Amino acid sequence: MMNENRDAMHAHPKAPALPAAPAVLISEVGPRDGLQSVRAVMPTAHKLAWIDALHASGLREIEVGSFVPARTLPQMADVAEVVRHAIALPGWTVMALVPNLRGAQAALQAGVHKLTIPASASEAHSLANVRRSRAEMVAVVREVVALRDAVAPGVPVEIGMSTAFGCTLQGAVPDDEVVWLAEQLAQAGVDEIGLSDTTGMANPVQVRRLFQRVRAAIGDKTGSAHLHNTRGLGLANCLAAWDVGVRTFDASLGGLGGCPYAPGASGNVVTEDLVFMFEAMGVATGVDLGRLIAAREALKAGLPGEALYGFNLSFGMA
Amino acid sequence: MMNENRDAMHAHPKAPALPAAPAVLISEVGPRDGLQSVRAVMPTAHKLAWIDALHASGLREIEVGSFVPARTLPQMADVAEVVRHAIALPGWTVMALVPNLRGAQAALQAGVHKLTIPASASEAHSLANVRRSRAEMVAVVREVVALRDAVAPGVPVEIGMSTAFGCTLQGAVPDDEVVWLAEQLAQAGVDEIGLSDTTGMANPVQVRRLFQRVRAAIGDKTGSAHLHNTRGLGLANCLAAWDVGVRTFDASLGGLGGCPYAPGASGNVVTEDLVFMFEAMGVATGVDLGRLIAAREALKAGLPGEALYGFNLSFGMA
Repeated sequence: MMNENRDAMHAHPKAPALPAAPAVLISEVGPRDGLQSVRAVMPTAHKLAWIDALHASGLREIEVGSFVPARTLPQMADVAEVVRHAIALPGWTVMALVPNLRGAQAALQAGVHKLTIPASASEAHSLANVRRSRAEMVAVVREVVALRDAVAPGVPVEIGMSTAFGCTLQGAVPDDEVVWLAEQLAQAGVDEIGLSDTTGMANPVQVRRLFQRVRAAIGDKTGSAHLHNTRGLGLANCLAAWDVGVRTFDASLGGLGGCPYAPGASGNVVTEDLVFMFEAMGVATGVDLGRLIAAREALKAGLPGEALYGFNLSFGMA
Repeated sequence: MMNENRDAMHAHPKAPALPAAPAVLISEVGPRDGLQSVRAVMPTAHKLAWIDALHASGLREIEVGSFVPARTLPQMADVAEVVRHAIALPGWTVMALVPNLRGAQAALQAGVHKLTIPASASEAHSLANVRRSRAEMVAVVREVVALRDAVAPGVPVEIGMSTAFGCTLQGAVPDDEVVWLAEQLAQAGVDEIGLSDTTGMANPVQVRRLFQRVRAAIGDKTGSAHLHNTRGLGLANCLAAWDVGVRTFDASLGGLGGCPYAPGASGNVVTEDLVFMFEAMGVATGVDLGRLIAAREALKAGLPGEALYGFNLSFGMA
């Protein structure tokens, strides 16, 4: 059942052309979100082999690293080289995380297709994660957008709004503050604003309500769902987001990663399980599940001994 | 946030009475479905202590065993004693599985509140699991209903329709056959017909479609969702069922169990995670999550070394 559209096109070349774009975009974040959450530093050659394996699975978007000082995150010291490798592979969008103007300059110089900037809905998390208040972070975003407009107008700027569904440092995060911050960021000129369940506190009712409220406020600038599986609700929350029109989902191969500055939180949604769910639902992802599962070997080779997660460890729908 | 209604009632005795029934009924199946799937035989005293711990959590329905020959399932040799113990505890419905008339006679004699009969949507699974065709099983159900009508008219008869979402022996199970079997069983006089994802093959789109189709055919006789987590979709499928009006969910403490006659299939939905999801959504379960998690200790004591699952292993919403 995997990739039946693609197979059908090969088998019947005279059949009417099918839509090229998958119905849902799976955005792999393991090489950034995953790697920056583990202590080990993956050697560059292993990163490149892992990224190649992810590319071979048909993924169309990937976040390959963070442009941050190497003394802060030694895991990301080789990010420019990783970007240059990834952008040479055809047919996908290569993103990098940039926390500030300096990072954005370096990322654009390396040739990224898209920038993503973290901004926390929780003031406490904002101070812990990027050492800036939310208002200061909006100012940083304005600077990055101005740089982008000046030197790389075709490069979208995305926000991953951390702690949108709750914060282990602060507790509940009011919906109104999420909407307020989304509006501020939209006015600052970003192209997409996604909502992240950094701390694994989201539930399906909240996911539906918050994405609907944000969409009502900023329309088509509403971006991806970045949901965690900390409490086992990862896929249920993805389903809830899908139900209210979200069409881009962040996930991490093997569930690698989480957020190092949100104590007790861990567990990105597992890309393999997410792809399985959508394909089982008849929603084309463009990803070959067998090849995706095979990419776990490249990840394991680069991070021996690291815990990986996922229920779908063998290919096949049944 | 757990049991805020109950706590509120204690704190404010003059407050208006709240509805007694929870918004959703969690039906614990571990002592039946769980135990019959593992090789070890849990000693009776441990079963009773585990059932006591489950009762203390506020569960309102439990399936405590199967009335089957002890040579077939030695795990269930003490089922009558277990039933007599469980029905002495107040405020919950005690069910037992009965595959045939002889089992129903013994179960009613022991004093069960409710009977559940397995019937497979897949002909291949029916032959493997109960050694009868589907049509033969409908005839058995008629016999059990006649017995119930004669000797225990207040005892509901429920069907758990196995392999409703697919079968590892047969492959796909057409929706039409599920609806046909549900109609046959409703005409045979049963009170509730639930749908079981015995093999972990269900997806949310299918869950919504099939429960809607069955409800269109048999109305309020549509019963519980018994969903597995084999592919990680357990909670997403429960959410999907909830969305289309299902209000009873089977689950197993620690995810114990599955189906021994469906090769490769395993993994009931974890009761702790299901309760967490509903409570987080604001849907009252009547279950105290802290006490439910504590009941894992009683389960572990009776089945040392058995693998247990679940993401919510400590009390608290955040």
